[in-house]
Amino acid sequence: MTDTNGLKNRGKTKADADERRKAAEEYTGAKLESISNYGFDPELASKNIENMIGTVQIPLGYAGPMTIHGEYAEGEFLIPLATTEGALVASISRGMSVINASGGAKTAVFSDAMTRAPVLKVDGIEHSKKVMDWIESHMDEIDEAVASTTSHGSLVDMEFYPEGRSLYVRLSFDTADAMGMNMATIASEAVCRLIEKNTGAVMVSVSGNMCSDKKPAAINMINGRGKTVLAEARIPKELVESKLHTTTAAVVDTNYRKNLVGSSMSGTLGANAHAANMVAALYIATGQDPAQVVGGSMTLTSCEDVEGDLYICVRMPAVEVGTVGGGTSLPCQKEALEMIGCHGAGKARKLSEIVASTVLAGELSTLAAQAAGQLGQAHKALGRR
Amino acid sequence: MTDTNGLKNRGKTKADADERRKAAEEYTGAKLESISNYGFDPELASKNIENMIGTVQIPLGYAGPMTIHGEYAEGEFLIPLATTEGALVASISRGMSVINASGGAKTAVFSDAMTRAPVLKVDGIEHSKKVMDWIESHMDEIDEAVASTTSHGSLVDMEFYPEGRSLYVRLSFDTADAMGMNMATIASEAVCRLIEKNTGAVMVSVSGNMCSDKKPAAINMINGRGKTVLAEARIPKELVESKLHTTTAAVVDTNYRKNLVGSSMSGTLGANAHAANMVAALYIATGQDPAQVVGGSMTLTSCEDVEGDLYICVRMPAVEVGTVGGGTSLPCQKEALEMIGCHGAGKARKLSEIVASTVLAGELSTLAAQAAGQLGQAHKALGRR
Amino acid sequence: MTDTNGLKNRGKTKADADERRKAAEEYTGAKLESISNYGFDPELASKNIENMIGTVQIPLGYAGPMTIHGEYAEGEFLIPLATTEGALVASISRGMSVINASGGAKTAVFSDAMTRAPVLKVDGIEHSKKVMDWIESHMDEIDEAVASTTSHGSLVDMEFYPEGRSLYVRLSFDTADAMGMNMATIASEAVCRLIEKNTGAVMVSVSGNMCSDKKPAAINMINGRGKTVLAEARIPKELVESKLHTTTAAVVDTNYRKNLVGSSMSGTLGANAHAANMVAALYIATGQDPAQVVGGSMTLTSCEDVEGDLYICVRMPAVEVGTVGGGTSLPCQKEALEMIGCHGAGKARKLSEIVASTVLAGELSTLAAQAAGQLGQAHKALGRR
Amino acid sequence: MTDTNGLKNRGKTKADADERRKAAEEYTGAKLESISNYGFDPELASKNIENMIGTVQIPLGYAGPMTIHGEYAEGEFLIPLATTEGALVASISRGMSVINASGGAKTAVFSDAMTRAPVLKVDGIEHSKKVMDWIESHMDEIDEAVASTTSHGSLVDMEFYPEGRSLYVRLSFDTADAMGMNMATIASEAVCRLIEKNTGAVMVSVSGNMCSDKKPAAINMINGRGKTVLAEARIPKELVESKLHTTTAAVVDTNYRKNLVGSSMSGTLGANAHAANMVAALYIATGQDPAQVVGGSMTLTSCEDVEGDLYICVRMPAVEVGTVGGGTSLPCQKEALEMIGCHGAGKARKLSEIVASTVLAGELSTLAAQAAGQLGQAHKALGRR
Repeated sequence: MTDTNGLKNRGKTKADADERRKAAEEYTGAKLESISNYGFDPELASKNIENMIGTVQIPLGYAGPMTIHGEYAEGEFLIPLATTEGALVASISRGMSVINASGGAKTAVFSDAMTRAPVLKVDGIEHSKKVMDWIESHMDEIDEAVASTTSHGSLVDMEFYPEGRSLYVRLSFDTADAMGMNMATIASEAVCRLIEKNTGAVMVSVSGNMCSDKKPAAINMINGRGKTVLAEARIPKELVESKLHTTTAAVVDTNYRKNLVGSSMSGTLGANAHAANMVAALYIATGQDPAQVVGGSMTLTSCEDVEGDLYICVRMPAVEVGTVGGGTSLPCQKEALEMIGCHGAGKARKLSEIVASTVLAGELSTLAAQAAGQLGQAHKALGRR
Repeated sequence: MTDTNGLKNRGKTKADADERRKAAEEYTGAKLESISNYGFDPELASKNIENMIGTVQIPLGYAGPMTIHGEYAEGEFLIPLATTEGALVASISRGMSVINASGGAKTAVFSDAMTRAPVLKVDGIEHSKKVMDWIESHMDEIDEAVASTTSHGSLVDMEFYPEGRSLYVRLSFDTADAMGMNMATIASEAVCRLIEKNTGAVMVSVSGNMCSDKKPAAINMINGRGKTVLAEARIPKELVESKLHTTTAAVVDTNYRKNLVGSSMSGTLGANAHAANMVAALYIATGQDPAQVVGGSMTLTSCEDVEGDLYICVRMPAVEVGTVGGGTSLPCQKEALEMIGCHGAGKARKLSEIVASTVLAGELSTLAAQAAGQLGQAHKALGRR
Repeated sequence: MTDTNGLKNRGKTKADADERRKAAEEYTGAKLESISNYGFDPELASKNIENMIGTVQIPLGYAGPMTIHGEYAEGEFLIPLATTEGALVASISRGMSVINASGGAKTAVFSDAMTRAPVLKVDGIEHSKKVMDWIESHMDEIDEAVASTTSHGSLVDMEFYPEGRSLYVRLSFDTADAMGMNMATIASEAVCRLIEKNTGAVMVSVSGNMCSDKKPAAINMINGRGKTVLAEARIPKELVESKLHTTTAAVVDTNYRKNLVGSSMSGTLGANAHAANMVAALYIATGQDPAQVVGGSMTLTSCEDVEGDLYICVRMPAVEVGTVGGGTSLPCQKEALEMIGCHGAGKARKLSEIVASTVLAGELSTLAAQAAGQLGQAHKALGRR
Repeated sequence: MTDTNGLKNRGKTKADADERRKAAEEYTGAKLESISNYGFDPELASKNIENMIGTVQIPLGYAGPMTIHGEYAEGEFLIPLATTEGALVASISRGMSVINASGGAKTAVFSDAMTRAPVLKVDGIEHSKKVMDWIESHMDEIDEAVASTTSHGSLVDMEFYPEGRSLYVRLSFDTADAMGMNMATIASEAVCRLIEKNTGAVMVSVSGNMCSDKKPAAINMINGRGKTVLAEARIPKELVESKLHTTTAAVVDTNYRKNLVGSSMSGTLGANAHAANMVAALYIATGQDPAQVVGGSMTLTSCEDVEGDLYICVRMPAVEVGTVGGGTSLPCQKEALEMIGCHGAGKARKLSEIVASTVLAGELSTLAAQAAGQLGQAHKALGRR
């Protein structure tokens, strides 16, 4: 094996990163010039990555401004989007412009909690029942265990799923404005240690996949994870025709055959055109966890003809976002959050409403384009090689 | 509404981007200094984004080197990973180091085709049958229609899914080293136009969601999309104990209760610990489409005790990657691809094997950490705020 | 068209049934002699069927006796099974005999409620919120509406699932010893009429498929429907070898590859060998609704090696049974229920535990047979043509 | 334990059954008079059940006559239905009467094959590839192995699903007019024995749950199992109003909110109102396997407004039926098959078209009733206690 000495450097300073990058160049034979050309002190990212050698620059554009009437997001927003997929930003912007002309998007948050579901090993059915009984009659101690790990979060719900020699406990936390996965993990482990001590159950994994993080899980689609958010708009008939070059009937029909029937026949969780695209572009821009695009991909998009107008709604059961922690304080990401007034405490629900509104715009535009038979052409014109 | 004049600038030059960014700063009140501080000519990204105002810089580190014995990837690779999730790179690296000490990962590609499934409107059952008959007896013309749109791709398979007044046709293409979604879309539309002309069926949408792109669809998990890739390793008992501080039995038990039973009970497509994390970090680093993390999230991870050693395998049914097109030629992304010898033609399967190997390492490390009851602590030490 | 006069007879007496059967014979040309040869007064079935012309006789056997230690079922039970699948009863009996020799099955009911989920049409997000608010602040009136339709049932839980212009309300009822679908439907309609009057929402369907009855729905697998019941047994190593002619390791391995990995890869809700077989045979014998076999088919079967012994458990999230109402009072079905002491009030949970125990025995036997590579042969010997 | 001597009698004669029943009466204390009162020689059921003590009599009615224009079923059919659910037969009959007045149901079979998917244990990825290679290059021997077990069936397709140390092989058989599960099992085992001998792979289970029998599996919904059948009808606007007392718009809306959106949100495989009801009633009447109601429960029902008329279609991806073997030769069941001209060879596809047509009628009637807000009332009037 090639000498990998320089690769072992574990420091966090710019000099460390430079040294490591040079070793990587030597090791791989690749020139990493663009990667090296970044604009912030790597120590700022010391809690976000290890072995840093530079950055990857993702093109950032914006869509909008978009008019949003939410419970938490109210006003006009210029939405930062990081993507490498040609036509995406333009398409979302088109959707926003039509929604604006229709009075804007309405949006609301219907539930909000971050889950973690440890799996405990038990002796069997009887033991499961005893463990459940103990937990239910010691909620004060459980709450204390949570409180000992965090001052921001609290336990708000708990569901049991007993199975043979495994007992899954789905814990739901209020994690304030953090996405909260980390907080939930640490608190859950503390809860489990308490349960272990008192019941003889053994924590096999702090995550038993009934949480479920970054996996397409029906439990999240049905019971929600992070924020459950809806956004809707009603596009007047005239605008559908003049600005989207199609008809209400055609869009409703496209949504019906594609998103509802097609998704059902393909065994899909959720029913949408490309929600993951908008979610990914906005999550990457604002320092969210891009693996949580999975939760966003379970969006359900519905379209209806309401007195000739086009009613469109997106239901997003699992918007897992935060405005503190994670990647939200990195320089570019922080600026992107500031563009939409979403950096820092008290902003997470607002951000989730902006996510849903952006998805709404992207869904509208793509469905209308497909209804108009334009998708192939749009890509030919704006598109990628 | 605020004056949005400056926002309308649609140009692609650096000056256009600067002007637009200034307008955005004015409009939003946010300072976009870090976003402005990027290292390449925006015209290079002219096919990747619209309304560009700068870039978002994602910290880039590496894991490895990792020893891979694949059909297409053979040797030692330093894996570029872009993430903001603390502990992720370190964890993957740990997994790689253990796999290396065990002789490396073995990997292979089992199928390779990009799908697009238009939905056609038909009159009903009889019409569906006629359309299917026409298509099956005119495959030469269909192939010509495809060839008229692309010189890189070709149609390799076709499945019919008739339903009432909708007929879904799932087309599978060889798209060479492009991820191929765009090529498949354009070719599919050409095929549909031909069918329309000859059968009276009407294309409602070039994508009828039986493709299915960027949605968690059982059809992709079962029948595959993009590359279906497996990667495996056998970790000697001694290494499980000395390097992972746990036992084969504990890891197998964790995988069983968490990934298999827990995923089943939560109605999850796939069964893994956090495959989407590795997929997202590698996709973002190398200019892949981050919304296609969804396909990667349906990974199935299995662990077995083989003569006391730990056998671990990841099955990834839908690795949708390319080494040409999309974001692969952007400066940083190109460099990241070059780090693993994956830029340009003839490299897409190699890249998919590297993806699977990286996921294998991440799964091993996390499962072992959970088996050792360390997850919470690991995050406390390395972690995020 | 043939004259269908005699077919129109709508009466419920024996004479009516005879006359109708003769008309059917004439119409179809088939002799319906065996169908005519039944042993009870058709008026007894007047609430169970229309257009009765006779009966279909399903062979009835028994498995067991089986030793069950449940919360509601305690003792030894001879289980009535109606089937036409050769080898099924013998196989279940074999499982029971091994379980008996191991000390019997343990079983418990973890939840119990029948659901109905009407879908209401609303104007959009804001209206949904108002309707939800109205409902939550008028629970007394809601309960009264329920009480006005039934003296046996009561509303025990309610979940909201808002989506665009649809609001789904999943109502959970205690329905005493009736399976309760009918009671839940009537009560739900009364609740909806009240909501309609006060909120302007319009009931589109008393069942909005989030109930969900007789469909394989993740919501039932996850959140339960009817009874959620578990049954388990621990088979000593020696018995696995002497009576099942296989080993603990082989059964555990079969369950792992087949029920867990295979079910995951095929996108299956639940993970079992053939739970639906036992459920169908017992449901048909005891006058349950055979379409609710679907709920039973989502069983999860787990097997573990516990100190060399074979631990096996079935988790059944949706056992929808009753011991009053439906087909339970028909003569044969009533007798079958009496065989297990389950006819009439106060017996539904007991019945559900017997269902789970029977499924446990059938799963054990089939898994062991497959582990021993015997399935093909068993069918050859006992089997069907 | 009570003496269970009499229970051990294993004979198949009437005298054996009588003796056994008496022992069961003694053992349980229940009088089994109705169960004893059956009309055929138990030796006729000797391959259908063990431990027979009598029969369960299920009320049999009929719906129709129904006009069907299929590829295999053509004409008017009086459909035998065995059920204990009041209002079901009447409701189906209502649907049929409306469909008849609209010109009848059209139906067709789109695919037909019975699957069995053994799981083989292999050493890992490389071994899997070798086994797959061996199989693909020895198809003649494989076909011979199949032929050695059956003269009625043949192998028509094969799909590989490699995973770690498991290799799943989904074999599809033409099983003529038998449902074919048994034939497929025996043939699959022979194939596996051949593979074992030549490749070193070991058959863990002849069914690896990628078949998948009697489980709600996406693989069957997507790729089909048994027969994939569609049935459709177009109900003139006037008939929707005069006979169904609702409107095309209302039925379409009900189907949309309930079957499509509701099923999506509840994570359901398929999208229908109550297909399993019709399937169960017809399967039980005609000696099919009632556990295979599960396959029928994945039906997708679609409704569209076509020029004011109501177009309705059911897509049934997994109709697993036979007209020889199984319970089809039992006296009552044979007569029921004869009512629809479906007993014996050459009739299985005809039967599958009748199944789909009956489901169509039941879906139409229930959707229309729900659209008319009548469901609760209908049950009150005709219904169960």
